[in-house]
Amino acid sequence: RSRNDEVATCIRFALRRQLIGLLGELLELMKVLHSRSLEHLDAIMPGYTHTQHAQPVTLAHHLNAHLDSFERDFERILDAYKRVNLSPLGAGALATTGFPINRFRTAELLGFDGLVENSMDAVSARDFILETLSCLAILATHLSRIAEELVLWSSLEFGYAELPDEYSSTSSIMPQKKNPDTMELTRAKACRVYGNLAAALSMLKALPLTYNRDLQEVTPRLWDSVETVRSMLRIVSGALKNVEFKTEAMRIRVSEGFSTATELADLLVRRRGLAFRTAHMIVGALVSEALSRGLKPEQVDGKLLDEVSVRVYGKPMNLADEEVREALTPSKCVEVRKVVGGPSPETVREALEHRRKLIERLEKKLKSLEEKEYAVERRLAEAVEKLRKQLRA
Amino acid sequence: RSRNDEVATCIRFALRRQLIGLLGELLELMKVLHSRSLEHLDAIMPGYTHTQHAQPVTLAHHLNAHLDSFERDFERILDAYKRVNLSPLGAGALATTGFPINRFRTAELLGFDGLVENSMDAVSARDFILETLSCLAILATHLSRIAEELVLWSSLEFGYAELPDEYSSTSSIMPQKKNPDTMELTRAKACRVYGNLAAALSMLKALPLTYNRDLQEVTPRLWDSVETVRSMLRIVSGALKNVEFKTEAMRIRVSEGFSTATELADLLVRRRGLAFRTAHMIVGALVSEALSRGLKPEQVDGKLLDEVSVRVYGKPMNLADEEVREALTPSKCVEVRKVVGGPSPETVREALEHRRKLIERLEKKLKSLEEKEYAVERRLAEAVEKLRKQLRA
Amino acid sequence: RSRNDEVATCIRFALRRQLIGLLGELLELMKVLHSRSLEHLDAIMPGYTHTQHAQPVTLAHHLNAHLDSFERDFERILDAYKRVNLSPLGAGALATTGFPINRFRTAELLGFDGLVENSMDAVSARDFILETLSCLAILATHLSRIAEELVLWSSLEFGYAELPDEYSSTSSIMPQKKNPDTMELTRAKACRVYGNLAAALSMLKALPLTYNRDLQEVTPRLWDSVETVRSMLRIVSGALKNVEFKTEAMRIRVSEGFSTATELADLLVRRRGLAFRTAHMIVGALVSEALSRGLKPEQVDGKLLDEVSVRVYGKPMNLADEEVREALTPSKCVEVRKVVGGPSPETVREALEHRRKLIERLEKKLKSLEEKEYAVERRLAEAVEKLRKQLRA
Amino acid sequence: RSRNDEVATCIRFALRRQLIGLLGELLELMKVLHSRSLEHLDAIMPGYTHTQHAQPVTLAHHLNAHLDSFERDFERILDAYKRVNLSPLGAGALATTGFPINRFRTAELLGFDGLVENSMDAVSARDFILETLSCLAILATHLSRIAEELVLWSSLEFGYAELPDEYSSTSSIMPQKKNPDTMELTRAKACRVYGNLAAALSMLKALPLTYNRDLQEVTPRLWDSVETVRSMLRIVSGALKNVEFKTEAMRIRVSEGFSTATELADLLVRRRGLAFRTAHMIVGALVSEALSRGLKPEQVDGKLLDEVSVRVYGKPMNLADEEVREALTPSKCVEVRKVVGGPSPETVREALEHRRKLIERLEKKLKSLEEKEYAVERRLAEAVEKLRKQLRA
Repeated sequence: RSRNDEVATCIRFALRRQLIGLLGELLELMKVLHSRSLEHLDAIMPGYTHTQHAQPVTLAHHLNAHLDSFERDFERILDAYKRVNLSPLGAGALATTGFPINRFRTAELLGFDGLVENSMDAVSARDFILETLSCLAILATHLSRIAEELVLWSSLEFGYAELPDEYSSTSSIMPQKKNPDTMELTRAKACRVYGNLAAALSMLKALPLTYNRDLQEVTPRLWDSVETVRSMLRIVSGALKNVEFKTEAMRIRVSEGFSTATELADLLVRRRGLAFRTAHMIVGALVSEALSRGLKPEQVDGKLLDEVSVRVYGKPMNLADEEVREALTPSKCVEVRKVVGGPSPETVREALEHRRKLIERLEKKLKSLEEKEYAVERRLAEAVEKLRKQLRA
Repeated sequence: RSRNDEVATCIRFALRRQLIGLLGELLELMKVLHSRSLEHLDAIMPGYTHTQHAQPVTLAHHLNAHLDSFERDFERILDAYKRVNLSPLGAGALATTGFPINRFRTAELLGFDGLVENSMDAVSARDFILETLSCLAILATHLSRIAEELVLWSSLEFGYAELPDEYSSTSSIMPQKKNPDTMELTRAKACRVYGNLAAALSMLKALPLTYNRDLQEVTPRLWDSVETVRSMLRIVSGALKNVEFKTEAMRIRVSEGFSTATELADLLVRRRGLAFRTAHMIVGALVSEALSRGLKPEQVDGKLLDEVSVRVYGKPMNLADEEVREALTPSKCVEVRKVVGGPSPETVREALEHRRKLIERLEKKLKSLEEKEYAVERRLAEAVEKLRKQLRA
Repeated sequence: RSRNDEVATCIRFALRRQLIGLLGELLELMKVLHSRSLEHLDAIMPGYTHTQHAQPVTLAHHLNAHLDSFERDFERILDAYKRVNLSPLGAGALATTGFPINRFRTAELLGFDGLVENSMDAVSARDFILETLSCLAILATHLSRIAEELVLWSSLEFGYAELPDEYSSTSSIMPQKKNPDTMELTRAKACRVYGNLAAALSMLKALPLTYNRDLQEVTPRLWDSVETVRSMLRIVSGALKNVEFKTEAMRIRVSEGFSTATELADLLVRRRGLAFRTAHMIVGALVSEALSRGLKPEQVDGKLLDEVSVRVYGKPMNLADEEVREALTPSKCVEVRKVVGGPSPETVREALEHRRKLIERLEKKLKSLEEKEYAVERRLAEAVEKLRKQLRA
Repeated sequence: RSRNDEVATCIRFALRRQLIGLLGELLELMKVLHSRSLEHLDAIMPGYTHTQHAQPVTLAHHLNAHLDSFERDFERILDAYKRVNLSPLGAGALATTGFPINRFRTAELLGFDGLVENSMDAVSARDFILETLSCLAILATHLSRIAEELVLWSSLEFGYAELPDEYSSTSSIMPQKKNPDTMELTRAKACRVYGNLAAALSMLKALPLTYNRDLQEVTPRLWDSVETVRSMLRIVSGALKNVEFKTEAMRIRVSEGFSTATELADLLVRRRGLAFRTAHMIVGALVSEALSRGLKPEQVDGKLLDEVSVRVYGKPMNLADEEVREALTPSKCVEVRKVVGGPSPETVREALEHRRKLIERLEKKLKSLEEKEYAVERRLAEAVEKLRKQLRA
C-alpha cells in the first residue's frame, strides 16, 4: 500500500534519524574548532576585510568565529526538528478514515512528538523538507567559507596552512604540487545543496491541495542534501583536525600589512585629543611613507611620525618611540582588545570556556534524542515480537 | 562612519521591526481563514489528489489545512527572530576596540535579546538573512498554493469561487472575462522570493572572513523579499476575506466524481469480511459500470452492486439499497470521519476552537514584541532628549 | 592520467553524442505534435488566457503553438552544439606542452569542429556546460507547460483528455481514480533541471583560472539534466501520441464561456461604426444578461442585443438574428481568423505544411550529425586496429 | 490598450536595443583585454590550478584566456538575438483578429527579422527572455571569475595588481587599506543575475497557455539582469584598463613555486628515455629536497639532481648544470610552449593578431545592427510625421 499518509510518515521518521546523525557530526566539528582554538590563543595573524589586512587578531579568535556560526546552525536544525518530528499517520489518502483509530497512540509508538493534525495538510505539507533543505544550505554556506579559507591559506602566497595528505591530492603531471582538493569540493558541494533547495521550492510552488505526484521528486532532493552535507561535515572536521597551521608565517605577514595602523590612530585620539578623522589622515600618510621606505611597523619611531605629522598636519605628535612602536606591534594591539567578543587571548580563553559548557549542553540534548530513538526501536521490536507470538499461537 | 558592526546592527534592527509587522499580517490571514472555515463547516466539496476527485471533504476542512500550514510559518519566523535579534554592536571593523565599552548595555538599549559575541563573526555573519529569506520562501510557497487554487476555482470549469472585483481584472478586449490577476501575480511573486534566496546563498558561498563588500548586495535581496511577501499576505488575506465560494457548485460536483467509492469498499470489508483488495476491485468495476450508464452515485443500488459483484467476483454482496446509497452519499462519508484531524463537521468545529485559542496565544506573543518595540523607541527618544539637554547646558 | 585537457575533452565528446540523441527525441516529439495537430484542424476549443475562456481556437492551433516552441528549442540546442563541439585537447594541464603536437589533427580525428584554442581557457572553461544546462532548463519549461495542461485537461472539471493507462496510475485505495502521474512528474522534473543549472552557475561563480577541483562537481549536474530531459521528452511524446482528446467536451465547453464575445464587439465596430470601447461595453452587458438568464451564445438574438443596447447605450443595434448568432458561434469566429499565425483551419493547415518541411530539414541536419558521429567511431576503431597490428608486428 | 501581443512586442523591441548596447560594452571589454595582453607578452607569471602554482605562463596568455571566453559570450548573445528579434504583433489577445492585417509589413517596419507566427505561441512564449537571462548569467560568471582574480591579486599576499583609486575604497577606520570593492560587488552581482534566472524559470514552470498575468513578473527580472550586467561590464572594463599589474612581483613569485618542475620531468623523458611516471617521481623528490634546503629553482644543478636521483631511483641522470637550470627557468619553459594555444610570446602574439581581426569582424557586425536600428527609428519618425500631416489635411 502506498497511502499518502504513510509516505509522509516514512520520510519524517527517516529524516529525524538523519538529523540526529548530522547533529552528532556537527558537534564533532564544533569540538575540533574548539580544541584547535585553544591551541592557538596567542597565534597572532592578520584579520581580513575585503581579503585585505585590516587589524591583527589571533588564529583562536578566527576559528572561534566559525565555531559560533556552527552553533547557530545546531540551534536552527533543532528548531527544524520540532516541525519534522510530527506524525501524519492516520490521515489516510487525505481524509482520515471511517474506522476508529487513535492517531496519538501510533504517533507515540513511533516516537513522534505530536501530530500533523489536519488530514489534508498532513498528506500535502512538505514545508518540513523545505525548512530542512534551508538549514542545510545555510550550514553548507558556512562550510564553504572555511573551505575557501583553507584553499587560500594553502596557497604559496598565503602559506598559512598545510593540509594533511589524505585531504589533498598530488598532480599526475606536476611533481611539486599539493592541491587542496577536498576543500575545493566542499566549496562546490555547497552549491549542490543550494540547487536542491531551489529545485524543491520550485516543485512545490503553486501545487493545489492535497497530494500530487510532484512530491515524489522532492524527497530525493532532501536525501541528496542530507548526505552531501553530512559528508562535507566529516571532511571539514577531518581537515581542520589535522591541518598544520603555519603560525610563524602568519606572525611575519601580520606586520607587513600595517594592520595595526588603527591602533596608532586611536592612540593619537587618546593622547593628543585629535579628531579620529585627523588621526586617520596622519597615520595614513605615515603608513604610505613607511611602505615607500620599505620599513616594517616595528621600525617606525616617534621621529618618523613627527616628520609626517608636521608635513600633513602642521604639528608634531611628540610621542615616545616606545609608545609608537607598542601601538604598531600586533600582539599589543590584540592584548588591549578585551571587550567581550574581542580577540585578546584572555577574552578568547573565557569565550572558549563558555563554549565548552555550551557544547556539553548540546551534547546532553543530543544524547537524549538518541536515547529516545533507541527506545522507539526497542518498542517497535517488541511489538513485532508480540505480534509474531500471537500469530504462532 | 560606515563601520562594519554598525551596518550589521542596522540591518538586524530594521529587520526585527519588519518581521513584527509581517507576523501581524500573517496572523490576520490566519484569522480570515479561521472565520471563513467556520462559515463552511457543512459545505461538502471534493477533496483532490493529483487534481482528481479523491474523497469528499468540506470547504472548512480544506481552508483549515491552509491555516495549519501558516501556523507553522508563524512559529518558524519566531524561531528566526531569536537569531535576528542579537547585537553585533561593538565588534567595530572586525576586532572590537581598545576603548572600554559595554556591549551588553548598548544591546539592551537597542532592544536586542543578546549579542553576536565574537567580533569577527559579528561583522561577517549573514545567516540571519539567509534564514529569514528561507522562512519567507516557504511562506511564499504556501501563499502560491492557495493562489493556484483560487485561479483554478475561478475558472469556468471549476466554478467554485468568484473573486471580488478589486482582486480581478477585466479584459480590455474580451468583454466576458474576469481574470484572477492578483492570484496569478501571487503565484509568480513566490518565485521572486525564491530568486532572492538563491542569489543570497550564492553571494555568501565561499566568502572568506570577515566583512567583504559582497555583503552589500545581499541586503537588498532581503528587503525585496520582505516587502514582496508582506504585500502577498495582504492580497491573499483580502482575496480570501471577500471571495464568494460557490458551495452549491461544489456540492453538485462532488457526487459526479464518485469520490465516495472508498467508503463503499470499506463497507464491503466491514460487512462482508472481504479483503480490501477484493472490495476495491468490485467497487472499481461498479464505478465503471455506473459511469458508462450515466448514473450518479445516489442512483446506484444494491441490485447493481450485486450484478457487478457476481460478474467480477462470482458472488452477490446482498446489501440493502439504503446501505449502498448511504455509503455513496458524500455527506454521510464526511460525517463518519471523526478521527482527530478528520473532515466531519463536528471534528472540524473542535479543531477550529483549538485554533482560535492558538491564534489568541500568538496574538499575545506578538503584542508583547510590539510593546517591547515601543519601549525601545521611547528609550531612544529619551536618550536623545537627555543628550540634547546636556549639550545645551 | 587525469590531465585537465583530457577531462574537458571527454565531457565535450560525450555531451556531443548525448545532444544528438536528445535532438532525435525532440524531433520525435515535434512529429507527434504535428500529426496530432493535423487530426484536429476543426476541433474547436476555448483558447485560454488567465485560465479563463478568452476566444475560441482549435486543438490543432493549440498543439501547433507547442510545436513552435519546441522548434526554437531545437535551434537553440544546435547553437549550443557549435560551442560544445570544440577540442581542448593538447592544452595539457593548462599550458600545452613543449612536445610538438598537432592539435588540429587530433581534433579532426575525434570529430570536433575546431579548437578551444587558448590552453588556459581550454581547461577551465565550462560555459559550454552552462549553456547546455540553460537550453535544457528552457526545454524542460516547455515540457512542464504541456504537462500542466494535460493534468488540468485530465481533471473531471475540464474533461478534455484521457491519458492512456501506461501514462496514468490508479489509486490503491480509491477505485474510481485515474491519476496523471507521468505528467505531474514531468512538471516536477523541470525543477530538477532548474536546480542543476542554479547549482552549476553558483559552482563556477568567482573561480579563478584555471582548473579547480570544483569543476568535478559541475559535470554530474550536466548528466543528470541531460538524462532527466531525455526521459521527459520520451514520456511527453508517448503521452501525446496516445492521449485521447475529448473534442466533444471541448466543443460543448467553448460555447458556455462566451469566448466569442470579442467577435460580436468587432461586428458592432464594423457594422455600426462604434468605438471599440463602446462595443465592448454593450457586449459585456449582453453577456452578463445572457448568463443571468441561463442562455447559451447560440440562444442570443438581435432582440436581446437591442434590449441591452438600448438600456446601456440608448440605441438599438438593429442586427439580424442571423448575424448576431453567427458572430457568437465559435466555429464562425475561428474561420474568419485567417491572418498568418491565426487559428482558422485553412491557415493552420498551411502552417502545418510549412512545419512538415521544416521538420524534414531538421531531420536531414540531424542525420548528417549522426553520420559524422559514425564516421568518427569507424576512424577511431581503425586507428586502434592499426595500432594493435603495429604492436604485434 | 494592453493587448497581449503588444506587451510581447514592446519587450522584444526594447530588449533588442539593450542587447545591441550590451554587445558594444562587451566588445569594449574585449578590446581592453586585447590591448592589455599585447603589453604583457613577456610578463612571466605562475599559471594556477587549484589556486596552486602549476606551470609558468605569461600575463598576456592569462588575459587572452578571458578574452576568448568573452568572445563566446558575444556569439551566444548574437544567437539569442535571432530569437529575440521576431514579431508577435498581430497575434492579438491570443487568436489574431478577423480584420485583414499584414503581420509581415508591421514586423518589417519595426525592424523585426521575422514573426513569432502562431498567435497562441506569440503571446505566451517567454523563452526569448529565459535565453537572454541565461546568456547574461553565463557572461556574469565570466566577469565574476576575473573579479575574483583581481580581489586575490590585490591582496598583500599575491601583490600582483593595484586597482586605480576610482575602483577601490579606503577604510574609514583603517588608514592603511585599499579595498577592491568594485570587484567584490561584481562578484556578488553575478549572483543577482543568477537569482533573476532562477526566478524567471520558476515563474514560467507549468503555466498553461496562453497569456497569464504571471508573465508580468518575469519582465522586471529581465531588465534588472540587463542593467546589472551592463554596469558590471563597464566596471570590469574600467578596472582592467587602469589596473597596474605588478609584473615584477609575478616574476619573483613564479620561481618560488617550482612550477617549472614539469619541464624538468619532460626533459628526463626526452633525454634519458624514462617513463614519465619515473621522471615525475625523481623530480618530485628533487623539489622537496630543494625546498627543504631553501633553494630556488635557478640554484638547483645537475649534482643535486643526481644526488636525489641516485637515492630514489638508483641511478644518476648526468645532465649538465646548464640543461637542468634551463629546464627550471620559467621564461625558457614558456618559450618552448609554441603549440597553438600555448603561452610562448610568439604564439600569443599570433593569437592576438587573429583576435584583432575577429574583434574587427564583430565590430562590423555590431555596427550593421546599430545602423538597422537607426533606420527603424527614422522610418518610425517618418511614419508618425506622415500620419500627422494626413490628420491635419
